[in-house]
Amino acid sequence: MKIAIMGSGGIGGYFGAQLAQKTDSDVWFVARGDHLRAIRENGLQIKSDVGGTVVFPAQATDDPKEIGPVDIVVLAVKLYSVNEAVEQCRPLVSEETGVISFQNGIGTEERIDEILGVGHAIGGIAYAPLAIEAPGIIRHTGNLARLTVGEMSGARSERLEAFVSACRKAEIETAMSESITRELWEKFVFLASFSGITCLTRQPIGFTQQEQSAKELFEQALKEAVAVADAEAVKLEDGFVGKTMAFAMGMGASAQSSMLTDLQNGRPLENAWLSGKIVELARKHKICTPAHKAFYAAMKPFETGSD
Amino acid sequence: MKIAIMGSGGIGGYFGAQLAQKTDSDVWFVARGDHLRAIRENGLQIKSDVGGTVVFPAQATDDPKEIGPVDIVVLAVKLYSVNEAVEQCRPLVSEETGVISFQNGIGTEERIDEILGVGHAIGGIAYAPLAIEAPGIIRHTGNLARLTVGEMSGARSERLEAFVSACRKAEIETAMSESITRELWEKFVFLASFSGITCLTRQPIGFTQQEQSAKELFEQALKEAVAVADAEAVKLEDGFVGKTMAFAMGMGASAQSSMLTDLQNGRPLENAWLSGKIVELARKHKICTPAHKAFYAAMKPFETGSD
Repeated sequence: MKIAIMGSGGIGGYFGAQLAQKTDSDVWFVARGDHLRAIRENGLQIKSDVGGTVVFPAQATDDPKEIGPVDIVVLAVKLYSVNEAVEQCRPLVSEETGVISFQNGIGTEERIDEILGVGHAIGGIAYAPLAIEAPGIIRHTGNLARLTVGEMSGARSERLEAFVSACRKAEIETAMSESITRELWEKFVFLASFSGITCLTRQPIGFTQQEQSAKELFEQALKEAVAVADAEAVKLEDGFVGKTMAFAMGMGASAQSSMLTDLQNGRPLENAWLSGKIVELARKHKICTPAHKAFYAAMKPFETGSD
Repeated sequence: MKIAIMGSGGIGGYFGAQLAQKTDSDVWFVARGDHLRAIRENGLQIKSDVGGTVVFPAQATDDPKEIGPVDIVVLAVKLYSVNEAVEQCRPLVSEETGVISFQNGIGTEERIDEILGVGHAIGGIAYAPLAIEAPGIIRHTGNLARLTVGEMSGARSERLEAFVSACRKAEIETAMSESITRELWEKFVFLASFSGITCLTRQPIGFTQQEQSAKELFEQALKEAVAVADAEAVKLEDGFVGKTMAFAMGMGASAQSSMLTDLQNGRPLENAWLSGKIVELARKHKICTPAHKAFYAAMKPFETGSD
């Protein structure tokens, strides 16, 4: 099958490289600037503590028109680039094309269907600590690299089954979900709260694990976000807050959100799409969300980065 | 009258200098380290945009025993130094000595009476943007310099009337209050919230004036602190939250809390005595204070400064 990776950063670059290397899929990388130049000259490199791979030559371009219609678009850009990236997808999309969204937040699927027409959006979640280390080089920390995907309707589809079977052939642990909306929300609720508390304190999760005031604030943030999910008629799994607290309190102390890494590096923040989104939805439903309001206000001055 | 200034930083140094220069009071400055050395060598200098003064020689020491009993101790140290400073006051205190506390928080008066014996503590509030600029030099920003003092009982006393009349002779605007506990709490409620929002956002108040999310969080913080005051049986003036919001929204955009200045300079923070105190009292009364919990958690990692 023909696959376009729109946004060849950590997530897109890594999973695209696995597919290019281990399957006969026709994989195209869309990238820009120094990263694109490096991929063209030296290939796309994946580095990890246990080894690495190089895809060379890699089919890479900054112009989707060069690629033409594909079966699947893997949309893996930051939330603040979603609108622009989805616009860029037009030449990649035929009637049957599925666009799988791998973002941190919620709502990208609606944007895809708004911009490209109803029926293209597929929900996706990537669990993997990946980032661009240098132009052309993706760093994989640890060995977690897992995908969950699902048609928004919950139905099975030929296009998605073909993609999942390509992923599995590429030795990517991939689950197909019949309740992707719920799973997207669960990741969103966790991530907004986790990003919030680590950015608020400017510390990895270890600080929150030790400091009662931060721990209580984190739990409050989870509860607020669950209340918003309820109001949006999304039912999370039973005991979600308790399970998520247990998970977060058991993480390695040095774990931190990518938003904190972005903050530390003066890069733009996904703030408006995480706690900001919760505050916005809460306002609509007249729900009180002081913890997310604090997370949002705390990062607001740094949202556009220090460039 | 004989006056000891315990802690000759911005507040103590400035008001002590006014008293030393413009009255016949026997004023002693207690200071330490480089600041003490500079005062001994060059006197205590007050600099402001509209001029300045020098008190030279200034009676300065780091050993209260050299001073002996005084009529009034002006206690003007940071909240985290209160216990140590009150202990140091012992040689300054005879049965009649009044110790006027000029701190940002609440509870210092209780500590004074606990350590030195009941009846010494006098409540005090200083409204003045003052700070040590360099050893021996106090910087006054703007021209606000006002004191409010009051016996904790609300009664008039000879010792306090003598002090107030000396202050007025020194051209310091000084009010004597019969409800100092209420006024201390009003300043505390404002300052904990103002310090909280400016430190959380790491921006002067202008940011909060412009940004709705921060403004709402600030108002929420005021309401939480008022609820705590209520629970502590302290009745603030009617319409306190509205008046304080109006005041804060009308401040110069560049105004910021001294805690933010301390944060920016890597100095220890009064966090535990401001939002931390509110969170602590709220827990006792089972009141929900998520805004102050967020303020507190946000500053907790930086509390001890970066020395």
